[in-house]
Parts: sequence; C-alpha cells; structure tokens
Amino acid sequence: MKKIAITMGDAAGIGPEISVKTVLNEKVLAACVPFIIGSGDIIKEAYPEADVSVFSDFDEIDFSRDDHIKVLDIFPLDKKYYAAGKVLPDPSEASMKYLDEAVSLCLSGKIGAFASAPINKEGMALAGYDFAGATEYLAHLTGTKEYAMVLFFGPIKMFYATNHLSMRDSLDSLNEDMIFNKILFIDKCLREMGEDNRLIAVAAVNPHAGENGKMGREEIDILGPAIKKAEAAGCEVTGPLPADTLFIKAKEGEYGAVLAMFHDQGNIAAKLLNFGSGVTYIHGLPVIRTSVAHGTAYDIAGKGIASEDTLVGAILTASDLAEKKERQNG
Amino acid sequence: MKKIAITMGDAAGIGPEISVKTVLNEKVLAACVPFIIGSGDIIKEAYPEADVSVFSDFDEIDFSRDDHIKVLDIFPLDKKYYAAGKVLPDPSEASMKYLDEAVSLCLSGKIGAFASAPINKEGMALAGYDFAGATEYLAHLTGTKEYAMVLFFGPIKMFYATNHLSMRDSLDSLNEDMIFNKILFIDKCLREMGEDNRLIAVAAVNPHAGENGKMGREEIDILGPAIKKAEAAGCEVTGPLPADTLFIKAKEGEYGAVLAMFHDQGNIAAKLLNFGSGVTYIHGLPVIRTSVAHGTAYDIAGKGIASEDTLVGAILTASDLAEKKERQNG
Repeated sequence: MKKIAITMGDAAGIGPEISVKTVLNEKVLAACVPFIIGSGDIIKEAYPEADVSVFSDFDEIDFSRDDHIKVLDIFPLDKKYYAAGKVLPDPSEASMKYLDEAVSLCLSGKIGAFASAPINKEGMALAGYDFAGATEYLAHLTGTKEYAMVLFFGPIKMFYATNHLSMRDSLDSLNEDMIFNKILFIDKCLREMGEDNRLIAVAAVNPHAGENGKMGREEIDILGPAIKKAEAAGCEVTGPLPADTLFIKAKEGEYGAVLAMFHDQGNIAAKLLNFGSGVTYIHGLPVIRTSVAHGTAYDIAGKGIASEDTLVGAILTASDLAEKKERQNG
Repeated sequence: MKKIAITMGDAAGIGPEISVKTVLNEKVLAACVPFIIGSGDIIKEAYPEADVSVFSDFDEIDFSRDDHIKVLDIFPLDKKYYAAGKVLPDPSEASMKYLDEAVSLCLSGKIGAFASAPINKEGMALAGYDFAGATEYLAHLTGTKEYAMVLFFGPIKMFYATNHLSMRDSLDSLNEDMIFNKILFIDKCLREMGEDNRLIAVAAVNPHAGENGKMGREEIDILGPAIKKAEAAGCEVTGPLPADTLFIKAKEGEYGAVLAMFHDQGNIAAKLLNFGSGVTYIHGLPVIRTSVAHGTAYDIAGKGIASEDTLVGAILTASDLAEKKERQNG
C-alpha cells in the first residue's frame, strides 16, 4: 500500500481535528498508509489521550505499525494556535510549509500522493504568500503552467461549463467551441488519470433537453454539434441529457465524468447525494494532490464536531489516483 | 379510516397492475380503506390467482374485510384489452367513466378522495373527450373555474415559477408580480389544504443566491421585493435561498412548500430524492383527487415490472388530504 500524506492545514481551524479523524479512519487504513504532515504539539493538544508519534524527518517515521498517529513535524508551531478560530500569520505560514514538504516527498517518490486539510487564503497573504490560493501556489512551486481543477463528488467527477456566473451570463457564455474544448479537456483528464470509464455525460441546458427545439435551442445549436465534433475527435460522449435524469445514472457510476452546464445544476445533485462539499483534484501538477472543497470553519474549530467525511474522501481519491498512475506507468 | 378509491386508468397500460399492487400495499391498508374503480374482468385477467370481489354498486361493496381486492365495476370492458399496450377507444372510454364514478362518490360523501392511475390523452380524444387532459375534464365535470396543479415529491410540495420553458424564456418571464402572486397562491393552497407548516422556501435564480448582486440581480430586483411584499401580506416566506442547499433542508420537511424557479432546479432534486415521478394534486376542485405524474407506460404493460410506488404515494397523499380537510371542517 502507498504512503499518503495529509497536510494538516491551518492549525487555527478544523484541520488538526479532521486530520486525526482521517488517519484513524478504517477505510483509509485499508486503502493506504496515512500520516500527517503538521505540528506534533498541536495534534497532541487536540488529542491528549491519543498515541501520537512525532518525527522530524520522513526517513525516521515508523511505518511498521498502524496503531499510532504518525506526525511529520518540519515547522515548529506553538500549541496555543490550536483551534484559535481566526486568521493568524504563524499557523498560516506553517500550513504552507506542510505543502512544500508534501510536494518534495511526492517528487522524490517517497510518497504516492497527498491530501490537504483546509488553509485560509487571507492567512496565506498575511504570511507573505502572494497567490490567489493553494492551487496557484502549488503550480508555482512545481513550475506547472497548465492545470485545471476537477471536482469529485463520490463516484461523480464533475466538470462545469459555467460556474460562478449569473444564469444570464452563463447562458450568454455557452458556445460550441467552449463545449467542444471542455469535452476534449475532460477526455484528456480521464486518460491521464488512468480512468477505464471515459464516457462523458453532457447535461442539457433546457428542460427535457429542449424537446427538439420546443423549449430552447442550445441543445441543437451548441451542445449537439460540439458533442458530434468531440466524438469525431475520439471522445466517448453522450448527451445532451435531461439534467433531472442524468444524475440518477451518474450516481450509479455510469459515467466517467459529467459536464454540468451551470453551478447549481451540478451542485443541487452533488449536495443531495450527500457527497459532502466535494473533493478537489488539481490535474496537471507533477504530483497527485487532492483537497477538501470546504474552508477552515473557524466557528467550529476545536469543538470536536467537524466532519472528516470530505477529507476521508480526499485521501481515498488521492490513494486511488496514485494506484492508477502506477498501473498506467508500469 | 376513510374509503379511498383508485381509478384504474387505461386497461391497456400499467394501470391494472399498479392498482392491484397499491390496494395490497401495507402502508396503504394502514392509512385508509382502498378499493379499485375499474374492470373486474381485467383485474382477474391480470391477477388470476388473486382473491378479487367485483361489485356493480358502491353500496354493495363488502368493506368488512381487508383480505380481498374490491373492484367497483360500472362499465363493461372485454378482458382482451388488458395490457394491450396501445391507445384504444374502449379502455380509454372506460378510464373516463371511472373518473365520473369517483367524482360522484366523492361529491355524495361516500368516499373521502380518489387517486388515479394513468390515462392516455390521445385515448381521451379517440373516445370522444375533447379536453386537454384529465385535469381539464375534472374541472369541467365539477364546474370548477379556478384550479391549479400542485406536485408532491415525498415531503416536498413543489411549485414552479417557470416550468416547460427554455432557460432563456424562463429568465425573461420572471418578474416581481409573478413571484408575489405565486407566493400568495401557494399560501392559499397550504391554508386550504390544512397544512400546519406554511413556510414557503423560495429558491434563488443564481449561484449562491447571487452573492449580493455579484452573480446576477434577480434576487435583489425580483425575488427579494416579492418576498417582502408577500410577508407584509401575511405569508410566511424564506429566501431567496441558494438552490443547492435549499433541497437538503426541504427533504427534512423543513418547509411547507418550495417555490422552484425552473423545471430542472426542482426536478433534479425531486428525482434524486427518489420520490418517483411525483404525485399530482389538483387544488380547487370540490373533490380531493391525486394522480401519478407518469404515463400509461404501454411498453412495459402486463410484464409485472411496473412500480406502484408513485400510485401508493398518490393514495397516501389523497388519504392525508381527506383527513386534513375533515379536521379543518369539523
């Protein structure tokens, strides 16, 4: 089984709590050998009764047994920051150092992948990191120019034609080239991820997929032609499919990916299917890295009520992608 | 417990099969005293081994025991029509006569309500009924001028600001008056149905409910003012709520009703929540009548594979509405 790291993220938020819950999760332990890159003092503060082993060098970590929490601590952090519940420079700086270490371990081949607990963007800036977010930082760190975010919701790999736009702007921005390029991109992602099922389901814009133009023409003028062109280019595509039935099949794992037209079209389904807030994967980096799509949740930090479900999903996805990558390469 | 009828619908479709499965359903038997208005010969043809009692007059029906299928047969129909799988005038005419009988029994107070298995619109025309559908026929039959369709999806009573329109036309047709009037109408429906929870959740148009105008202005210009006006008029309303989280609360039964903005916005949620194709209720008629929102399904007629789930939902809803009406009146 592969060694997979969890970067603890911002100590002032729910990161320490969900990191510990995740490395103790049975499904996680059955799928990989997990450890935390974070602060030993913070983890001990969070779980005083837990069996925590702290190491300052990866090569010293005792991976021979499952029954202790392994923490690789490469950046000292005062325990007072645990669940502090606000943006602070020190825990923010630490959270960035964890990413550095994880990337370095991945690039050297010592670990297969890593999954990240949340960091805070404001904190990144406070700590002197001038990047829009962790994604941009990781791209910079690895010298990656082309990359893209993929959202995993349980068995559904979700892509969006439009996302944080008004419905009107979303409709205005749809065109054949854009959809064609999205499909090509998704196909490329699925191939590079080593996915066997590369069938891409394209959601319709209009009710009943427009019913042959009776309720809107986007299916006829934009989606249909883009899908045909993508098929001719070697992609497996189906659609445009009525959005209200597409997700019933998607949840059964019928598709390799779903291309949703709008933010809510994809997210109504994803949230109802109880896949937490989704697992984010940055495709294109030379390392396999997933993260939770939710934030630091300062308001509930240290209360013991944060759910580790999404971080569990993130590390399982990371582990799965690492296995697929290995199969593909060897 | 109230006597509630099922009108068997079109004998050539799945009506006979799902009607029998529904009157034998334990939840249905626990909630009401069900019987079928349909063809005795057809039901016997469909279930030769079943204990079927056929009556030609309501007053003769033996309601004293649960362990037989009670069929009120007021219109002779040849058994050859059972699951014939296509539109035919005789079973279509019969399906309309069942509605006549059910309405008459409701108006005389002999039964509390009725739920309808599907009829075929083309068949209605073939049989000489010049109406757009069963709804219009029932309104005509009862001299009802003002009525409206309500869709029940499990605990969710769903109303739509726009429905069978393209997304562009849907957006163009939204305005403050329309939303205000929809909310008033929903409130009226909930009161008349005797609902205790009259909180109406209004879904947003744009992602994140527009984020204060950053992603669309419908929430600020249309929905917000309409909701305020409706509150001033005595309605309980909440919203506009981001559509991707609204339905998580709706499925817990938090709202008396949901006002979805678009067809798919409501239906992605409803279908994923596995509430079948929804139960239709015509509000405004002098009788309580529900029906399944699905069709005659000729392609699977007589195969024994049709699901009775939605018809079970329809009769349970009818029974519940009848109880509430009685409580309200007495």
